[in-house]
Amino acid sequence: MNVFYLPDADLGLVTMPEEESKHCVKVLRMSEGDRFCVTDGKGYLYDGEMVEALPKRATVNLTNKRKGYDHWGFNLEIAIAPTKLNERTEWFLEKATEIGIDRVRLFTSYHSERRAANVERFEKVMASAMKQSIKSRLPEIVDLMPFDKLVKLPFDGQKFIAWIDDNVKEQLCDLYHKGENVLVLIGPEGDFSLEEVELAKEHGFVPCSLGDARLRTETAAVVACHTVQLINQMK
Amino acid sequence: MNVFYLPDADLGLVTMPEEESKHCVKVLRMSEGDRFCVTDGKGYLYDGEMVEALPKRATVNLTNKRKGYDHWGFNLEIAIAPTKLNERTEWFLEKATEIGIDRVRLFTSYHSERRAANVERFEKVMASAMKQSIKSRLPEIVDLMPFDKLVKLPFDGQKFIAWIDDNVKEQLCDLYHKGENVLVLIGPEGDFSLEEVELAKEHGFVPCSLGDARLRTETAAVVACHTVQLINQMK
Repeated sequence: MNVFYLPDADLGLVTMPEEESKHCVKVLRMSEGDRFCVTDGKGYLYDGEMVEALPKRATVNLTNKRKGYDHWGFNLEIAIAPTKLNERTEWFLEKATEIGIDRVRLFTSYHSERRAANVERFEKVMASAMKQSIKSRLPEIVDLMPFDKLVKLPFDGQKFIAWIDDNVKEQLCDLYHKGENVLVLIGPEGDFSLEEVELAKEHGFVPCSLGDARLRTETAAVVACHTVQLINQMK
Repeated sequence: MNVFYLPDADLGLVTMPEEESKHCVKVLRMSEGDRFCVTDGKGYLYDGEMVEALPKRATVNLTNKRKGYDHWGFNLEIAIAPTKLNERTEWFLEKATEIGIDRVRLFTSYHSERRAANVERFEKVMASAMKQSIKSRLPEIVDLMPFDKLVKLPFDGQKFIAWIDDNVKEQLCDLYHKGENVLVLIGPEGDFSLEEVELAKEHGFVPCSLGDARLRTETAAVVACHTVQLINQMK
């Protein structure tokens, strides 16, 4: 089943943006009468039918508006310092979108490898993953901000900082309370500086371990995301 | 801390294989007296010191032989049909090695996208991940075999088949018993055929869900791997 992303989706006739029009008419060779699924990225799915297969502005008819099943009832946010290799950050964004996440916050810190991020490109990666996994909501991505600004932002829920330190024995899976909103900070390749960890603690972030395994930055971010989702799915 | 993989590691003087010699002498420019960590891929780590920095056959002195911490006390195996894009299978192998896995079995099935696999290349990916995450054990990878042969192999532990079906309500995280050996079958992009699921059930595999999210093959495999590790890590 093909899935298309139409941010302006609504019941009735809708004109597809040029990129999606081209994709379904030129690439997928869809024609009048063809059926597909549509997500608006805001929480709703529709049944779609091709009405006018124009390669630059296809018109589709949307019916059966319904809420997606990907509403887990809590707010899951991961903050991450973009990795040296962009593909690793993009891989995290794809997998987190599949597994389920509400918001990704990018930050720069003392040991950050990257000081700039292509948020538009990152959004495309998440939109593609949203369609592939037939999700109704596109996770929000918040552009780079300095770590000291990030930790001062208000957040209504549990706040953790995943930190590789022998003194940090308590694990996210034991500290996180099922159903609660949660924000997890994932360090850069060089990890957080001691000052950054102290600053985070001052602002209510609880240091936590993600387990014994030594994980890459992007793996740690996916593991944190899946840990929260799994705890909420367990009986 | 640099980590090298020496399958023949032992206490005392050891000659590095050509590839690792080249890597540490030519690429990392290590010289006499430089120190590093060594894994033998069989469960042990060593402290290493460069004795003779020859680019094709470097000699190192190994001391402080110790068991790695990555002995989780149960056997975790994932069987997967290689994905259409090799990089996705390789990504799974890298992440599973970081998170922790004992054996990966490759299989071909009715909807398989690939009928051949470059096991040597896959091993290199896992060896690299083992070094990066300072693991003492290199996961074993078993070359492609037909699905009907795979499900008939004896396995001492819980056996699951992750299957995307609305009738499969029970989740791996609820069915798996902490501490037990486990083998999870992950379907190809086109999922398992009904006949394959029936055959697996006949041979003791329990159908399970990995949650509500619709996951790509390689994501499902990583999620299954992390689910088992997390349940064993939880208090």
